[in-house]
Amino acid sequence: MILDEYNIPDLPARPEKPRERGLTHMLDKGLSARQAEDVLAVGAAYIDLVKLGWGTAVITPNLRRKLEVYQSADMPVYFGGTLFEAFFLRNQLDTYRRLLDDLSVEYLEISDGSVSMAQEEKLDAIRTFAQDFRVLSEVGSKDANNIMPPYKWVEFIQAELEAGSWKVICESRESGTAGLFRPNGEIRSGLVDEIVARVNPKDIIFEAPNKMQQVWFIKHQGANVNLGNVAPEEVIPVETLRLGLRGDTLFTFRTPDVSASLSNGAHGDGAERS
Amino acid sequence: MILDEYNIPDLPARPEKPRERGLTHMLDKGLSARQAEDVLAVGAAYIDLVKLGWGTAVITPNLRRKLEVYQSADMPVYFGGTLFEAFFLRNQLDTYRRLLDDLSVEYLEISDGSVSMAQEEKLDAIRTFAQDFRVLSEVGSKDANNIMPPYKWVEFIQAELEAGSWKVICESRESGTAGLFRPNGEIRSGLVDEIVARVNPKDIIFEAPNKMQQVWFIKHQGANVNLGNVAPEEVIPVETLRLGLRGDTLFTFRTPDVSASLSNGAHGDGAERS
Amino acid sequence: MILDEYNIPDLPARPEKPRERGLTHMLDKGLSARQAEDVLAVGAAYIDLVKLGWGTAVITPNLRRKLEVYQSADMPVYFGGTLFEAFFLRNQLDTYRRLLDDLSVEYLEISDGSVSMAQEEKLDAIRTFAQDFRVLSEVGSKDANNIMPPYKWVEFIQAELEAGSWKVICESRESGTAGLFRPNGEIRSGLVDEIVARVNPKDIIFEAPNKMQQVWFIKHQGANVNLGNVAPEEVIPVETLRLGLRGDTLFTFRTPDVSASLSNGAHGDGAERS
Repeated sequence: MILDEYNIPDLPARPEKPRERGLTHMLDKGLSARQAEDVLAVGAAYIDLVKLGWGTAVITPNLRRKLEVYQSADMPVYFGGTLFEAFFLRNQLDTYRRLLDDLSVEYLEISDGSVSMAQEEKLDAIRTFAQDFRVLSEVGSKDANNIMPPYKWVEFIQAELEAGSWKVICESRESGTAGLFRPNGEIRSGLVDEIVARVNPKDIIFEAPNKMQQVWFIKHQGANVNLGNVAPEEVIPVETLRLGLRGDTLFTFRTPDVSASLSNGAHGDGAERS
Repeated sequence: MILDEYNIPDLPARPEKPRERGLTHMLDKGLSARQAEDVLAVGAAYIDLVKLGWGTAVITPNLRRKLEVYQSADMPVYFGGTLFEAFFLRNQLDTYRRLLDDLSVEYLEISDGSVSMAQEEKLDAIRTFAQDFRVLSEVGSKDANNIMPPYKWVEFIQAELEAGSWKVICESRESGTAGLFRPNGEIRSGLVDEIVARVNPKDIIFEAPNKMQQVWFIKHQGANVNLGNVAPEEVIPVETLRLGLRGDTLFTFRTPDVSASLSNGAHGDGAERS
Repeated sequence: MILDEYNIPDLPARPEKPRERGLTHMLDKGLSARQAEDVLAVGAAYIDLVKLGWGTAVITPNLRRKLEVYQSADMPVYFGGTLFEAFFLRNQLDTYRRLLDDLSVEYLEISDGSVSMAQEEKLDAIRTFAQDFRVLSEVGSKDANNIMPPYKWVEFIQAELEAGSWKVICESRESGTAGLFRPNGEIRSGLVDEIVARVNPKDIIFEAPNKMQQVWFIKHQGANVNLGNVAPEEVIPVETLRLGLRGDTLFTFRTPDVSASLSNGAHGDGAERS
């Protein structure tokens, strides 16, 4: 990319892939194999994980072909937690496991956003699957009226990490109106502060489907916050937000000294501009 | 698709195509031929009809090539009612008919969402075109302030079906803010109840461009409600809503007994989860 | 296109490309080269200029390939003003100029939407770059709380045109919530009236990312108003709005006489409709 040829100083450093911090986690809700190729053509370096949303995987024709596209680009893919829940509530997790094995899908999301599951039952599922899969578990209800206090979020996140979850996803729905967010889309910032004070941020993925939320997390948690449910067409925009190359974050990662000198108009390259 | 290989019990049955119930009716507002191929690569089994929105067809370059893509997949295509209205208000329906013949388009929408047309005049148009085309007619104004009482909707729908309409479309605009919906996007549920109580639901297509509306119709009218103005990227998501494979409808089609046993934690496959 | 074969009378005339009025100015926020081909396959005749939004260009892999796609279709491309600002605030406009030369990009946007820049400094930059580039400059803050009175807008626009700007862009953000628009997305119509009363409309591009805004500008400023920040998938819809082929503008360009005869039901081609 051009940024490698024309260095722009003072941009926040981004770890190389595979990385543990600064993950961008893309939501594919039914792309064709060719559309997945298009997404990777520009986004491969910026996307760390692809989720095939909820139950979309099982009704996508030629799913194997699409998985091949992602897997041949070394892009981990997993299926949305609602699919786990659909098999769980039918007592068919053995079938789900066979399905994942058959498709060589090595990541799996365990969630209880819609089904009710005793905590111990969920931790058991995490322990069992973590023996053979990289498990992402999700905390937070999809029900906008189900408001859980911060200490509960922290307790659940810690318990699931101890049970073997690779990352814990903090729920917000595709629309950003539940879990971390109030029904009006406003963020529960006290909740986020409490979570990151008590859990290593590398272990958490914040679902942030909307730009306002992405900006908020990047400004408050830094360029390398883990963001989830990013739409395919927002992968490049999110990366520019992380790098301070979009208006919203242009000054977020600048040192105070430099900004000060700028507001005085004390620029050094007047030659180019006058 | 995977669902054929790994059966998930208790999913609502979907009729085979071509079908009369459970239609998904996609809005193409200017796709290229290749983009249409991408849409069909994943959506062909789920889309029943494609509308080239309003007047987009006549300004789309290489329209014949795009029509070929759809028609070679046995996908019926028609042009939005506003195009009919554009020719109608210029007294050029003869030109419109030649255009449709020339392009081998066999479906046609007759609407009066923007033009004013006496009811008898509209019924005449339906009768005439129904001799040579499969006619979709549309009821409901695009004007958000034009609130029509339920009995009028029913009367118009019935009269148009008698005049020869194959389906009657209930208007909501692409944005979901008129006709069936209040200007704030909220659904007029009493209106919908009245319509389905008096008209065979197979004869009606409800425009439901937004997810909230799609969920509402599927929950209230069942998996096989006919839905219109679905965006290309929402075809797969809508199918998962119909099948109960998305959080919003995960329990919509489950029998009470099964749900009850689940909430007791009486699952049979503990082996997989513990 | 079909419109060339089947004439629809009374459509507003659109100037041939390259044109000075009626520009549609597309925002590419990270398309792949193949996606850019798809956009051009249907939109080439309707798009006058492509902006690679803010800093997206420098992180897009294979940018040269994408530029080739646009340039081989004679489609001018330029980079968003935020990228200019990112180099400006680092005193590296010389680097930016080398980068543009290297990529054969002949258009350049000069903005101060996020950085603070004395007016004279901005005019100097315009004068300097206008010697070698076609300069678009942008007026209006990205800050929703920064409300500038109309006379100031006019003064800035006129000064920038005199300094050598080819067009002045009136800011509204991608989301349409600043500059020309109030934070709630409502248009500052008195401001627009004042601008067009004092500046030749061919010299101005109004950013209008949302449909409501596009309709407003077309109804108030005519079919050939210059519109900016149009999303790729909205290029065809915007062109139908300009031509009066969508419900919102179906009657906007009709002469009063014709409309009058229609509302009387005095159509001449009853044969086709009855």
